[in-house]
Amino acid sequence: MSLDAIVISDKIRRSLAGLVADVFRSPQIFRSCLAIAIVVSSWGAYAGTTDGELRVNGTRLNTSMEQMKEFGRNSSGGSARVAFSEANRRAYVYLRKLMTDAGLSTRIDPAGNLIGHRDGKKSGLAPIIAGSHIDTVPNGGHYDGIVGVMGAIEVARTMHDADYRTHHPLEIIVWSNEEGGKTGSRALNGSVAEKELDLPSLGDHSIGDGLRLLGGDPDRLFEVERKRGDIAGYIELHVEQGAILDREKTSIGVVEGIVGIKRWNITVHGFANHAGTTPMDHRQDALYAAARFITEVRRIITAESGRQVATVGRIRAFPGAPNVIPGEVRLSLEIRDLSMEKIDLFFNRIREATTVLAENTDTAFDFEQFYLSPAAVTDARISDLIDASAKELGLSVMHLPSGAGHDAQSIAPIGPIGMIFIPSLNGISHAPSEFTSEQQITDGANVLLKTIIGMDQLLP
Amino acid sequence: MSLDAIVISDKIRRSLAGLVADVFRSPQIFRSCLAIAIVVSSWGAYAGTTDGELRVNGTRLNTSMEQMKEFGRNSSGGSARVAFSEANRRAYVYLRKLMTDAGLSTRIDPAGNLIGHRDGKKSGLAPIIAGSHIDTVPNGGHYDGIVGVMGAIEVARTMHDADYRTHHPLEIIVWSNEEGGKTGSRALNGSVAEKELDLPSLGDHSIGDGLRLLGGDPDRLFEVERKRGDIAGYIELHVEQGAILDREKTSIGVVEGIVGIKRWNITVHGFANHAGTTPMDHRQDALYAAARFITEVRRIITAESGRQVATVGRIRAFPGAPNVIPGEVRLSLEIRDLSMEKIDLFFNRIREATTVLAENTDTAFDFEQFYLSPAAVTDARISDLIDASAKELGLSVMHLPSGAGHDAQSIAPIGPIGMIFIPSLNGISHAPSEFTSEQQITDGANVLLKTIIGMDQLLP
Repeated sequence: MSLDAIVISDKIRRSLAGLVADVFRSPQIFRSCLAIAIVVSSWGAYAGTTDGELRVNGTRLNTSMEQMKEFGRNSSGGSARVAFSEANRRAYVYLRKLMTDAGLSTRIDPAGNLIGHRDGKKSGLAPIIAGSHIDTVPNGGHYDGIVGVMGAIEVARTMHDADYRTHHPLEIIVWSNEEGGKTGSRALNGSVAEKELDLPSLGDHSIGDGLRLLGGDPDRLFEVERKRGDIAGYIELHVEQGAILDREKTSIGVVEGIVGIKRWNITVHGFANHAGTTPMDHRQDALYAAARFITEVRRIITAESGRQVATVGRIRAFPGAPNVIPGEVRLSLEIRDLSMEKIDLFFNRIREATTVLAENTDTAFDFEQFYLSPAAVTDARISDLIDASAKELGLSVMHLPSGAGHDAQSIAPIGPIGMIFIPSLNGISHAPSEFTSEQQITDGANVLLKTIIGMDQLLP
Repeated sequence: MSLDAIVISDKIRRSLAGLVADVFRSPQIFRSCLAIAIVVSSWGAYAGTTDGELRVNGTRLNTSMEQMKEFGRNSSGGSARVAFSEANRRAYVYLRKLMTDAGLSTRIDPAGNLIGHRDGKKSGLAPIIAGSHIDTVPNGGHYDGIVGVMGAIEVARTMHDADYRTHHPLEIIVWSNEEGGKTGSRALNGSVAEKELDLPSLGDHSIGDGLRLLGGDPDRLFEVERKRGDIAGYIELHVEQGAILDREKTSIGVVEGIVGIKRWNITVHGFANHAGTTPMDHRQDALYAAARFITEVRRIITAESGRQVATVGRIRAFPGAPNVIPGEVRLSLEIRDLSMEKIDLFFNRIREATTVLAENTDTAFDFEQFYLSPAAVTDARISDLIDASAKELGLSVMHLPSGAGHDAQSIAPIGPIGMIFIPSLNGISHAPSEFTSEQQITDGANVLLKTIIGMDQLLP
């Protein structure tokens, strides 16, 4: 045990002492302590074999991040590495080399996922998977998805360098086509419909053709499917796209879950009429009613504390001329929350308010739900491991939901999932100006490393 | 003097007796009495020559109205007699025949207006003009414009039959292309820009080509122009398009003026962001701000009694996806009132409210005025004549502004104008279901007849 290891152990002991007083206050704190104990014990175990302070190589990690920017960089300095593009394919070649060098055996599965695999020490265990994606939106940035892939590869490299072996098999997966419909990760839970393969991707190919270009085979997608029990646990590192961590100057976000989404098309029926000859008190103005609706949505959704959000993003008025009172307005409503019940609760309140509103404005409202994405809750054990790992590294932590969708939600139906968020400057994503600092990326990768080691100890 | 004339004269005396008590109360009443006196005296004058009870032939008038429906009737029972169509041209042939039979000399001027002219008894006087239009919107009705033309022709026929001659020359004008930009009437005040002639009309031709098809000559438009003093007075009978007369069960509307119009394009600048990851209290939602704006417009415009109206008829949100908070919204604002000062006053209040609103919603508002149509106030003397004529006929009367535009407003800059409104069922216009009853049309034409006779007496 080196001097460094002793210093670290001292730190851990001090942290633990501070926690003892709180330990019986709540199950949450008790679970956190357990997670810390596991993290410490895994270090203890490891410390016996080498130096006790297993950390990723931040310089190497960020050099690889820089290297990745070259695959698809566009004229605005952003990334055009859309799924199935040549840049996507070339990046796979690069990543495959990194995986091989890290002692992983690699393959591309029929869903176009690039998988690096290493057997565990113990036979008969399901793998622990770490992954994310490297495809971007057409004029995207260099961090969304990429930090998760490069972080996971760096964890594998770190373990390889230190000859650290997990009990479970370890899989690093680069999911295909996240931005265009999460094809790769959804293939694992068997929810990719055949007709999707004919849809255009964000690039030049259909999704089916795109999978072939990456080395997949859309005709054998079923082979990719995994059942509950096939995965010991899944962990994903990702930038946080809501600016919460950045604003709160917090290093690590422990994701409570990926919010559920419901979307409705709403039609407001009024009566189109002459804007000059129709007195104000005889109007059935569908746009005025829609405007009151939009302000009601905001009032109702913010009347209660919580992280629920509601958005009206699309609106059209008919006939749509400056001199005609709109007779019809079509708009969209989206509500997101970690709890599907809360989504329904807020929707019902909004709908109820609409009844009064329609009467007051002499209009009628029609609602038609057209989209549903169920909420995916993260596993409390994995979340506690993330929390403990971050604190152990001296990093600030907060727990928050993910308002955006991620590959992790595709895995939730078949195994326990966890997600680590790191800040994105001003919460910007899907844009060339997306930015996360080298230190923040290194911190995230170290939390990922410790969490994986913790999962390996904790999960069956 | 026939017995009928004596009975009428008795009626007039009784009406006058009832008014005597009120006569000095207000200038308005005094002016009305003067108008009645003129109507009576003109009758007196006329009674000497024939029967004293000059009335239009309602049956003949409504038969002609029916005949007009044949020119351009469409499959939905409405009218497709758009300007410059074959139906428009054929209707001109029919109307020209009616005019000729009524003793008018006819011509089509370079602006495509069909003009029937009869010299007055006295030389050196400017003409009194009565007119309206017969072109319709693509799927329009059979009354908007048409009642004014057929009413004026019926007045000429009535005078012709009774050999009644006005002092002033009388002109019946069928204005070209009212629905597509009032080309015919605007040519008289010289405001038709050359580039307009290249614009598409509501039919298959450019406006310039259309004028040629009707027998006009766009290269000689300048010849049509008239100056102040060239017109003794202009009077137009038209259906009221705001349902006010219909709702109030009132036969005759005395138009106080044609409202002025200002239109603005408004851009709301927010910040487009992820609808899932952006908390409600960190949004710069341009559509939410726009919705608050629309409700503010309604609040401000109705906070004061009056007939001002404001309309937001067009709206677009960008990028316009259900899962993106709108970063920009573009909408239109239109305000109409008889007083341009009041339009400005209300606009300033709205703009002021927007300053607070922008601050509260973390957005910015840009206003750009893109349209101005000055208010055209009717001549008080002509309005009084209409009022008196209607009352004399035992018809209910109300005074009201015209929220819609009319050919009369083109004449306002060069001579005194007046407008007579008759009810339109439910205020519907520009639709096949537009309807005014035969009795209402006959009543309107009789008021038009009496008003023209009054104008002939009163106006220099």
